Amino acid sequence: MEIIYVFCMFSLLVSFSYAAVQDFCVADYTAPSGPAGYSCKKDEMVTADDFVYSGLNTTGNTVNIFKAANTPASADQFPGVNGLGISMARVDVAAGGVIPLHIHPGANEVLFVAEGTLDAGFISSDRNTVYVKTIKKGDIIVFPRGLLHFQVNVGNGTPVVAFASYSSARPGLQIVDFALFKSNLSTELIKRSTFLDFLQIKKLKIVFGGTN
Amino acid sequence: MEIIYVFCMFSLLVSFSYAAVQDFCVADYTAPSGPAGYSCKKDEMVTADDFVYSGLNTTGNTVNIFKAANTPASADQFPGVNGLGISMARVDVAAGGVIPLHIHPGANEVLFVAEGTLDAGFISSDRNTVYVKTIKKGDIIVFPRGLLHFQVNVGNGTPVVAFASYSSARPGLQIVDFALFKSNLSTELIKRSTFLDFLQIKKLKIVFGGTN
Amino acid sequence: MEIIYVFCMFSLLVSFSYAAVQDFCVADYTAPSGPAGYSCKKDEMVTADDFVYSGLNTTGNTVNIFKAANTPASADQFPGVNGLGISMARVDVAAGGVIPLHIHPGANEVLFVAEGTLDAGFISSDRNTVYVKTIKKGDIIVFPRGLLHFQVNVGNGTPVVAFASYSSARPGLQIVDFALFKSNLSTELIKRSTFLDFLQIKKLKIVFGGTN
Amino acid sequence: MEIIYVFCMFSLLVSFSYAAVQDFCVADYTAPSGPAGYSCKKDEMVTADDFVYSGLNTTGNTVNIFKAANTPASADQFPGVNGLGISMARVDVAAGGVIPLHIHPGANEVLFVAEGTLDAGFISSDRNTVYVKTIKKGDIIVFPRGLLHFQVNVGNGTPVVAFASYSSARPGLQIVDFALFKSNLSTELIKRSTFLDFLQIKKLKIVFGGTN
Amino acid sequence: MEIIYVFCMFSLLVSFSYAAVQDFCVADYTAPSGPAGYSCKKDEMVTADDFVYSGLNTTGNTVNIFKAANTPASADQFPGVNGLGISMARVDVAAGGVIPLHIHPGANEVLFVAEGTLDAGFISSDRNTVYVKTIKKGDIIVFPRGLLHFQVNVGNGTPVVAFASYSSARPGLQIVDFALFKSNLSTELIKRSTFLDFLQIKKLKIVFGGTN
Amino acid sequence: MEIIYVFCMFSLLVSFSYAAVQDFCVADYTAPSGPAGYSCKKDEMVTADDFVYSGLNTTGNTVNIFKAANTPASADQFPGVNGLGISMARVDVAAGGVIPLHIHPGANEVLFVAEGTLDAGFISSDRNTVYVKTIKKGDIIVFPRGLLHFQVNVGNGTPVVAFASYSSARPGLQIVDFALFKSNLSTELIKRSTFLDFLQIKKLKIVFGGTN
Repeated sequence: MEIIYVFCMFSLLVSFSYAAVQDFCVADYTAPSGPAGYSCKKDEMVTADDFVYSGLNTTGNTVNIFKAANTPASADQFPGVNGLGISMARVDVAAGGVIPLHIHPGANEVLFVAEGTLDAGFISSDRNTVYVKTIKKGDIIVFPRGLLHFQVNVGNGTPVVAFASYSSARPGLQIVDFALFKSNLSTELIKRSTFLDFLQIKKLKIVFGGTN
Repeated sequence: MEIIYVFCMFSLLVSFSYAAVQDFCVADYTAPSGPAGYSCKKDEMVTADDFVYSGLNTTGNTVNIFKAANTPASADQFPGVNGLGISMARVDVAAGGVIPLHIHPGANEVLFVAEGTLDAGFISSDRNTVYVKTIKKGDIIVFPRGLLHFQVNVGNGTPVVAFASYSSARPGLQIVDFALFKSNLSTELIKRSTFLDFLQIKKLKIVFGGTN
Repeated sequence: MEIIYVFCMFSLLVSFSYAAVQDFCVADYTAPSGPAGYSCKKDEMVTADDFVYSGLNTTGNTVNIFKAANTPASADQFPGVNGLGISMARVDVAAGGVIPLHIHPGANEVLFVAEGTLDAGFISSDRNTVYVKTIKKGDIIVFPRGLLHFQVNVGNGTPVVAFASYSSARPGLQIVDFALFKSNLSTELIKRSTFLDFLQIKKLKIVFGGTN
Repeated sequence: MEIIYVFCMFSLLVSFSYAAVQDFCVADYTAPSGPAGYSCKKDEMVTADDFVYSGLNTTGNTVNIFKAANTPASADQFPGVNGLGISMARVDVAAGGVIPLHIHPGANEVLFVAEGTLDAGFISSDRNTVYVKTIKKGDIIVFPRGLLHFQVNVGNGTPVVAFASYSSARPGLQIVDFALFKSNLSTELIKRSTFLDFLQIKKLKIVFGGTN
Repeated sequence: MEIIYVFCMFSLLVSFSYAAVQDFCVADYTAPSGPAGYSCKKDEMVTADDFVYSGLNTTGNTVNIFKAANTPASADQFPGVNGLGISMARVDVAAGGVIPLHIHPGANEVLFVAEGTLDAGFISSDRNTVYVKTIKKGDIIVFPRGLLHFQVNVGNGTPVVAFASYSSARPGLQIVDFALFKSNLSTELIKRSTFLDFLQIKKLKIVFGGTN
Repeated sequence: MEIIYVFCMFSLLVSFSYAAVQDFCVADYTAPSGPAGYSCKKDEMVTADDFVYSGLNTTGNTVNIFKAANTPASADQFPGVNGLGISMARVDVAAGGVIPLHIHPGANEVLFVAEGTLDAGFISSDRNTVYVKTIKKGDIIVFPRGLLHFQVNVGNGTPVVAFASYSSARPGLQIVDFALFKSNLSTELIKRSTFLDFLQIKKLKIVFGGTN
């Protein structure tokens, strides 16, 4: 009887096999990208490896001024998330370190604390309300899209390991200090658009490497 | 006086003719595709034929184990719907046949019954509520995105012809039996992830052609 | 052994049963609606009947000037499609009838011809290119969002039955003749904004019932 | 002390510099376009000029039958808005002129009146309600997506300058007169789908240059 | 003959009048709002006035530290744009004034300069590239979503009047100085998350009225 | 001099303080929900606690047939993510346990392995290709929307702790075994739509508690 089944299966292939589908769009970094993300790798080139990423497994280098590191797993590193509206990053903050004031231009974020204790918060745009809380191992916190936020390691000498998830495959990361003091934005324009003092700007440009 | 009008028209062309537009994006199957669909054919290559599809006009081959056929008209077959968030398929179910348990990963579906009688239903994900109903010629039924659903011909020996519409140009079709028993997913992994018995799995792998 | 299984199942309920889900949002016509659609009926009030609609099963009344009828199954009639980005309508066109020039403000459309023969077409917005074709029983045609289109019964005295699918739960229907000649838009504004003659406008206002 | 900072900055680059981002997608007109817009220019080719457009600075040529001009700044002219869901156009209407009945297939519009006085309005699709108002310098008016609307200069001999913003980078512009009377849509199909008289159609085809 | 037409029209109403539609969703500020915006006012309460806003017609009060004013016409002031993904604001910058460094969390912006001359720019998030340009009357500039940007009046003593359009009905406005120095974010957290000096922070808190 | 600043600030409040914004939409569980999510809590009721969730901090109860637990932090538990297109869940899999074959109807998933080793995979819908891989502590894997997937603990007796992130605030969870064998779907309909044997179905209905 099963032989009949097997026979049937072949005609079955005819009737059901050309179903149209776009289950995923693994990034092809060699083709043009568009507003929705990278072009898709051809199906026959896709393997299970495209959907797994191991780059978040190692501690980022926190020997820097922030004593912190951000290790992204966005569509630029992790081709499998291209076009899927989701990605991750690992956040390491050594004792005394900080993820400085920043925004993700195109993504909401949920941060999961794997190790350590943080003061984390964001400022709303309407009334400049500050939503800040001490979050501990196992907690999650959400930072709505495009709002200034920060995380400060307040554990007693213990490093923080946290994992951020984003509602975008390419969330972006704009650090205010870098935008102002690591760029070539002129001191005059910074002064006028922030009301910071000339000397303060110059001092931080030296720290972060900005010009002009 | 109309001669004046005709004269005016020329300058009119100048002022209104370079209006920007992207009315449609007929699929160019030779260029890269992206998360939003296929690249667009150049406007001057597009003809009325790109917007009409006749492939749903013939009965699908139902000589198979399901006694059924699914004939898609998605962006893969019907270039005019590319990027428009809509497509169709024809469903034929011979007497005694069934469209087996399946999901459309990326699309809501409305099914219109052109001929025959079906028991059709889906299961919700929260409380595993079954929404099932006998639907007849002229009825429409909606299957929300990503939920398991099925259609069983319960007419007295009459074939069913139905037309599915999807809220995606490439809705996908994942048949549970095919995913498990026509693929190379190992019997061990199937057993552990479904609690089906070893012999049941082996039997259906023979029916559907699965390996491992 | 299965008794053990049954026992286990109860604790299993604890661990998996409060999974969050919004599978669907059946329209509650008594609560406020928002930009994304109607409010959702509470889950316990939802039945299989909410997902099935039989209103497209009967021929629309074509005893009118267009010799045609449009019978919608949008979220306003069919609560199950609310929020799902899909809906349908039945189109009846008697011999010699027409679905006059119209647009769906918020939806792409695929039209399936169940009976009869139509001349159907749309005009693109950039170069005013006309895409028109004679479509027959079994054909489907796509009309991109927001473009003027029409269907004319060109069968030899046979009525047309067609089913439209839309990429919106509430596609809208704006018939140009109704907008201009069944409304209270003043003849002066119509004249200036269409270049139609005064007498032509007045004549059609009488036909369609417009005022001013 | 600042020397230490500078030293730190280098390792800081290592930990934060490969943050993934897609801030914008400046149109590359030479690569394929897709449903979401044009392909993106490579980052190193992008300059500030891509984000600024000066083409709306000059009065459009209003020596035409409408005594009006529409000057778009969509993704087709202004590469910086590609993929961003926003664009603009300049609207000039000389004394006695009109922006004739039209629709934007894929975009909501807000029109800002910089100079002059307009009667502007749209017709809703459900009950053919006319929303029309006299708007003056400094006013803004919104036209919802895909609905017929118009603007008539009703100032006493003063030209109108207005600026339209759209909720799409490529809003499209379908002028009803052009769709019907500047295209090659046959007089017979126009007659049947609009109920306009034969002579009226022929007269306007001469005015606008339509054939067939 | 037209009497026959009029007769027909009545049955015509039956067949076409219950077409479903959601052309717009004018904000009802008294009902709950949701993620997609405010609830919709009932159709019979909507008037043409809901779609017109005159609040941008007057110069904002620029007697303040920025010598500037931002006058929004978002869904909170202008109910007609609710749910439509578009809104506007008027920007006044007196001689020597500035729209300080800020972000719109949920919207791309196109700014049209009606009067005066600005240095306007934004900083990209990946390489901290500064895109800055002097823009003059008639120019438009685009600021992509969620990126820090600013506008500085650089005209010789002439005020700037500009009109911003946003790809959201509620774009939000987060001014960095307000987020940091007008809020109750503690000086310690500001210091750690921005590397600004204690005295600089305290000075600006006095200027902007921040506490803690 | 700073006294002057303070004075200025007050008029400044006038010009900038009514900026419109919808930074977030914390779920109000007492008001109607719609297709886009729950209604928003009023701003003055929102506190930092709404944005932090500690429910993922404790191990789920894995004393069940799957030896596994799924603990969601979706908009139903975590009001701060409502409307933001992102949420999380904790996944515990004891030694020998499994997250059985399931789908998330409305969300892509990225799974981060905090402890242990898994065989995880999904099946594509077009060719029934199996993408399966052994993933270890620190790895992430992506499961595209609406595709059948599973995770099997293959560590040597060590429990798995993993954290799932979803591209939806309410991703849903449909476990195939529950849909079929814990529901009231009739054995006859299961048999016909899955080709499983009658006895297999009955056996699993006893295990999972299904009726009919």
